[in-house]
Amino acid sequence: MAKQLNVGMIGYGFMGRAHSNAYRMVTNFFDVPQEPVLKVICGLVEDEAKAFAKQWGYESHCTDWRQVIERDDIDVVDICVPNNVHAEIAIAAAEAGKMIICEKPLALDVAQARTMVEAVEKAGVATLVSFCYRRVPAVTLAKALIDEGRLGKIFHYRSVFLQDWTISAEVPQGGMATWRLDVKAAGSGVTGDLLAHCIDTAMWHNGPITRVNAMTETFIKERVHTETGKVEPVGIDDACTFFCRFENGSMGNFESTRYARGHKALYTFEINGEHASIRWDLHDLHRLEWFDHRDEGKLRGWRSIHVTDHGGDHPYMDHWWVPGLAIGYAEAFVHQVADFMTAVGKGEPCSPTFREALATQKVCEAVLESAKSGTWVEVPAD
Amino acid sequence: MAKQLNVGMIGYGFMGRAHSNAYRMVTNFFDVPQEPVLKVICGLVEDEAKAFAKQWGYESHCTDWRQVIERDDIDVVDICVPNNVHAEIAIAAAEAGKMIICEKPLALDVAQARTMVEAVEKAGVATLVSFCYRRVPAVTLAKALIDEGRLGKIFHYRSVFLQDWTISAEVPQGGMATWRLDVKAAGSGVTGDLLAHCIDTAMWHNGPITRVNAMTETFIKERVHTETGKVEPVGIDDACTFFCRFENGSMGNFESTRYARGHKALYTFEINGEHASIRWDLHDLHRLEWFDHRDEGKLRGWRSIHVTDHGGDHPYMDHWWVPGLAIGYAEAFVHQVADFMTAVGKGEPCSPTFREALATQKVCEAVLESAKSGTWVEVPAD
Amino acid sequence: MAKQLNVGMIGYGFMGRAHSNAYRMVTNFFDVPQEPVLKVICGLVEDEAKAFAKQWGYESHCTDWRQVIERDDIDVVDICVPNNVHAEIAIAAAEAGKMIICEKPLALDVAQARTMVEAVEKAGVATLVSFCYRRVPAVTLAKALIDEGRLGKIFHYRSVFLQDWTISAEVPQGGMATWRLDVKAAGSGVTGDLLAHCIDTAMWHNGPITRVNAMTETFIKERVHTETGKVEPVGIDDACTFFCRFENGSMGNFESTRYARGHKALYTFEINGEHASIRWDLHDLHRLEWFDHRDEGKLRGWRSIHVTDHGGDHPYMDHWWVPGLAIGYAEAFVHQVADFMTAVGKGEPCSPTFREALATQKVCEAVLESAKSGTWVEVPAD
Amino acid sequence: MAKQLNVGMIGYGFMGRAHSNAYRMVTNFFDVPQEPVLKVICGLVEDEAKAFAKQWGYESHCTDWRQVIERDDIDVVDICVPNNVHAEIAIAAAEAGKMIICEKPLALDVAQARTMVEAVEKAGVATLVSFCYRRVPAVTLAKALIDEGRLGKIFHYRSVFLQDWTISAEVPQGGMATWRLDVKAAGSGVTGDLLAHCIDTAMWHNGPITRVNAMTETFIKERVHTETGKVEPVGIDDACTFFCRFENGSMGNFESTRYARGHKALYTFEINGEHASIRWDLHDLHRLEWFDHRDEGKLRGWRSIHVTDHGGDHPYMDHWWVPGLAIGYAEAFVHQVADFMTAVGKGEPCSPTFREALATQKVCEAVLESAKSGTWVEVPAD
Repeated sequence: MAKQLNVGMIGYGFMGRAHSNAYRMVTNFFDVPQEPVLKVICGLVEDEAKAFAKQWGYESHCTDWRQVIERDDIDVVDICVPNNVHAEIAIAAAEAGKMIICEKPLALDVAQARTMVEAVEKAGVATLVSFCYRRVPAVTLAKALIDEGRLGKIFHYRSVFLQDWTISAEVPQGGMATWRLDVKAAGSGVTGDLLAHCIDTAMWHNGPITRVNAMTETFIKERVHTETGKVEPVGIDDACTFFCRFENGSMGNFESTRYARGHKALYTFEINGEHASIRWDLHDLHRLEWFDHRDEGKLRGWRSIHVTDHGGDHPYMDHWWVPGLAIGYAEAFVHQVADFMTAVGKGEPCSPTFREALATQKVCEAVLESAKSGTWVEVPAD
Repeated sequence: MAKQLNVGMIGYGFMGRAHSNAYRMVTNFFDVPQEPVLKVICGLVEDEAKAFAKQWGYESHCTDWRQVIERDDIDVVDICVPNNVHAEIAIAAAEAGKMIICEKPLALDVAQARTMVEAVEKAGVATLVSFCYRRVPAVTLAKALIDEGRLGKIFHYRSVFLQDWTISAEVPQGGMATWRLDVKAAGSGVTGDLLAHCIDTAMWHNGPITRVNAMTETFIKERVHTETGKVEPVGIDDACTFFCRFENGSMGNFESTRYARGHKALYTFEINGEHASIRWDLHDLHRLEWFDHRDEGKLRGWRSIHVTDHGGDHPYMDHWWVPGLAIGYAEAFVHQVADFMTAVGKGEPCSPTFREALATQKVCEAVLESAKSGTWVEVPAD
Repeated sequence: MAKQLNVGMIGYGFMGRAHSNAYRMVTNFFDVPQEPVLKVICGLVEDEAKAFAKQWGYESHCTDWRQVIERDDIDVVDICVPNNVHAEIAIAAAEAGKMIICEKPLALDVAQARTMVEAVEKAGVATLVSFCYRRVPAVTLAKALIDEGRLGKIFHYRSVFLQDWTISAEVPQGGMATWRLDVKAAGSGVTGDLLAHCIDTAMWHNGPITRVNAMTETFIKERVHTETGKVEPVGIDDACTFFCRFENGSMGNFESTRYARGHKALYTFEINGEHASIRWDLHDLHRLEWFDHRDEGKLRGWRSIHVTDHGGDHPYMDHWWVPGLAIGYAEAFVHQVADFMTAVGKGEPCSPTFREALATQKVCEAVLESAKSGTWVEVPAD
Repeated sequence: MAKQLNVGMIGYGFMGRAHSNAYRMVTNFFDVPQEPVLKVICGLVEDEAKAFAKQWGYESHCTDWRQVIERDDIDVVDICVPNNVHAEIAIAAAEAGKMIICEKPLALDVAQARTMVEAVEKAGVATLVSFCYRRVPAVTLAKALIDEGRLGKIFHYRSVFLQDWTISAEVPQGGMATWRLDVKAAGSGVTGDLLAHCIDTAMWHNGPITRVNAMTETFIKERVHTETGKVEPVGIDDACTFFCRFENGSMGNFESTRYARGHKALYTFEINGEHASIRWDLHDLHRLEWFDHRDEGKLRGWRSIHVTDHGGDHPYMDHWWVPGLAIGYAEAFVHQVADFMTAVGKGEPCSPTFREALATQKVCEAVLESAKSGTWVEVPAD
């Protein structure tokens, strides 16, 4: 195995920064089998790509992603561009035999996602879709508690992702900063952007979702498009609520919106089992709430666990500072890269792979379909 | 106007106690036009009725509710019995010209509720349905803030009522303590018992609900019936989730269950408007959470308002202790009686009347119907 | 034993109301050996005393407290007047053989308190000083946990009582509403009014305080006196901070002020033991925070216990509503009366007696003395 | 000005990691005038120093700190070793004309600290003492609010730093992991280690502390010393409580301990002013609590500000991710390095300098002296 993992990064936006930071930090905190080397950053505007390369220490920059894939010295292609370009890049990367890390959601729709899964599986390359919240230590701890069977039979899973940044009708659609409001670039609104996170975590925690029933709304029907300068219809969902069934019989309730005043990124989940319940909230991501009915009666209460302990108690935390000192959002990406590199080193897959992300894409698509039809929609098993 | 308001109480369970306590406390704290006099308590078991009369200071007791209604000296009949007996008593009381306070939900179903509304409106008697949470000061304050237009256009209303007391399969159905699990006595499960509260408050805050889409579940299919001693099918809904549309265009999301470990009575609501948002939680009923986007940017945050101020700032609180000292659950019933007596004194209706409670009953019925049909159901306007 | 307990109440202010309410509610919720009968209310202004009698159901009223004590039919004298009148009334009541319930602090100073203790012990009458917070269920639960030895060796006890109602220089001193700012009526400021509560609870929880070191401040040096209409020097302490030693070797830290913006009645305590810690906050009085180091490592966290459970789990709560439904401030007085009557019925003392309140008075006096001398002051053992 | 800032790091423990991480991250997030270059790491054990160099990208390593100072190519010496070595290194570094970043507390005592201040001021080198919490965005925001005069006259400042890691008598003293329990290495216990942070922030927020009155305790009197293997007396303070006066007339209350079960690093402060109050808690370091009495009466409440906004609203946050996404503990060190480099670039001092840290050292020493004498001790003005 080579000593280095050569990275070709495509996209220098918010996610391009988060991924770059992770590559730079990972070897300082984790014992990974290779050292990531930032070989090339690719982005649309040359000056910006150049400046980004300088700021983050990339050896080179370019403006055409094909050049990244054509390079022999690139081991992993990291896709941090709008959703509508994921498929083309990923398929080309797979055909070139590159490992791929791709931002979520995997694709614009299920059909496209399937072509991506086929391509990477045919090529046999390692993949990872960046559902980063799985690797927030509190969320990882929740998974461990569930897997240990501590909750018993699960009755309920509920999750929301609430924001408030698009309430003003002055916010445009399209372009670098607001492509998430442009259906052509994003595929969908909160469903693909935010609920995809909730769904990925939920199925990781609680198994497959089998059927869904949804409602969506677009509160602001027209917005200026930054590319055309014209007022154009808004094609995305501003808000989406759905309930569902999991394969294990439990009931799910999900909601997402960008019209919830006071919430910048309120991603929460709660899971209620026969014996115990768990809650989490991204706004205070270093805490996990735990209620155990088996506790002595008079002392039962929700525990607020500060997930910063050492000695193996709290996932990933041995690698950071000392108990009581929190890590932030960015560290989840460090964990993601560390896990990916470790898995690659062992020749094992790293979750969530493209195939696993396809399952989330199916639920998203069923949700949007249900919102249109006004009735239950089955999530296809394959 | 007579100096006294003579009360005939029917039912000596949990609600019979809460209402009796309110009648006893109201004149100490509120300036009401009459003094309630506890004339008679009626309940099924004579010894228990007699003991209750002694404990609460009722002048007499009986075991047949018809005797209460036949008495000329009774002004108000207070119905605190299981849901399946509401209609018969209420209609008889109306025909006898009595004022009526009735526990929620109004009836077993809409058809029955309609007959009750017709009877009381024909008789022209004052009515009140005990959706008590409207008169928790924080909830009343929320209403005032909404009515003042502080939230602007409303986008979302979400509310849950979560409990965990029926998770054990050993809990029976039927009888004094567990009639809420017996569909014949209760009409429905969490929908009528818990969601009815959420729906009443929601429509009070945010206007009519026009259409609903629901999912229900009965996790434990059979339970021993205390009356027969036999294992019988469970006919109620253990859990119910629904989303809906309000007439004002906002989206609603509601959920209730008795299978959420760690929640004894977690009734919460949150309302998101263009300018501001509000949250409340029955577990800490003396607090209201408020977020105002018009606050100065760097100081924006959710405010936790301890709703105990005086000087007219916080509804009802001038009547109690001093700022900082909380009241509890029971005081909402005192407020309810005070408001009812004040309204009666002025010859005005006191919300929620039977007619207003019928609207909630319609939503509940639409919810149950939707859960069966698996699709949207319109809530009939009349 | 007589069926009735005849009450003579002296004082119709805030505390007169709280005590009256307790007598009226106690038999509805607790099985006490007698029924309290509100025989007479005594207060300075006849019209007000008369109105109070009407509102609360007192059989009679008067304006001279000596008349209450002279009556043969009074069993218990309840003293709810400013601190400077406690001693005279209590000693007279004791000499007349009355039981006495007295508001806190017991007296203006230790010398006065000693005369009161001597009088009641000589007379052999039952006494209770209304340190009401002991009987908030969460506080009582804390005591039980400590007594069970669950905390192990105690290292720290810290407690604050923060208010913000006297920050304005416009608030006067003296008179019905603001006698607490007049040193002649109150004896001291926050030390006797607020810290006395903290100290009473602390010594109940953690044993005797042996030595103290204190600092006080009077931020506003002069205020209009409502009786003279003139600006007069302020003799009370606006704020007081002290640290101390408990007999068991633990360290104490206490603070009180009426100049802490944002706190209406923030009475909190925290106790740290070898194995576990406890926290409580009057603003959310129905919750107790509990941390147990013996919990499994990865699940350790502060538990927020909603102290509303039944089945004997949570003190007093079986008598109220159902789990999850909170009681408020006023109910602590109901518990106090119930415990007092039960103890009297058994011929047992009810804590805190006058003698126990004397111990708190000694600490208060030592605190004020230390603030003057600027050094440690020993608390006299007797 | 050179393009690079050459760093010589002395110490590879917890702080050595935190500082190294900051140098590595700073240019990715902040526009600083130079690029830090990790030239050399110095530590006692060669293998460990070598491994650290590899992990963090230091160009070289050594085991004698004098070698670092002798190198011409070192611009800044960063001192991350136990307190007893600070002075010697710092003075030598100053004499060699190096800039100095030094971990807190500055020295073992005031006398030693004075020699350091003299040395660096004589040499005219830039200095910074790593009181890192000033640069947690919420803490920095608090400073800005105070400086804008929003709180009005200040009445109270209270602060605690509570931990629980030395409760077991099995924890040794001395050596790499537990030198903080060895008085020879640390100078004092919680006073220098934890209260120094509280004091630095407090004086930054609220001005000079003029006099103090303190109590300390050493709960465990003897511990095994890792160097001798023998049980030796413990010379540090395990817990320290003090109250004080600020020059502006406000009252201070401070406490620190390592015996508070349930608190890993509970560093909090609260400041109460005439108009507003502020609270903060390191366990949730991304939030600031704010209460403003000038808010409309019925809507007054403590605001929980999620200090993650952009657009200049929240200090440092424009440089990180998007609103709602928190940063952690480590980022405060990045801010510290960014501010230091920016100040150096402008030829300006960067707070807290050695001279400012000397003021904190004086308060610490007065605290320890007061704890011995049992009375007030004046903090010398110079």
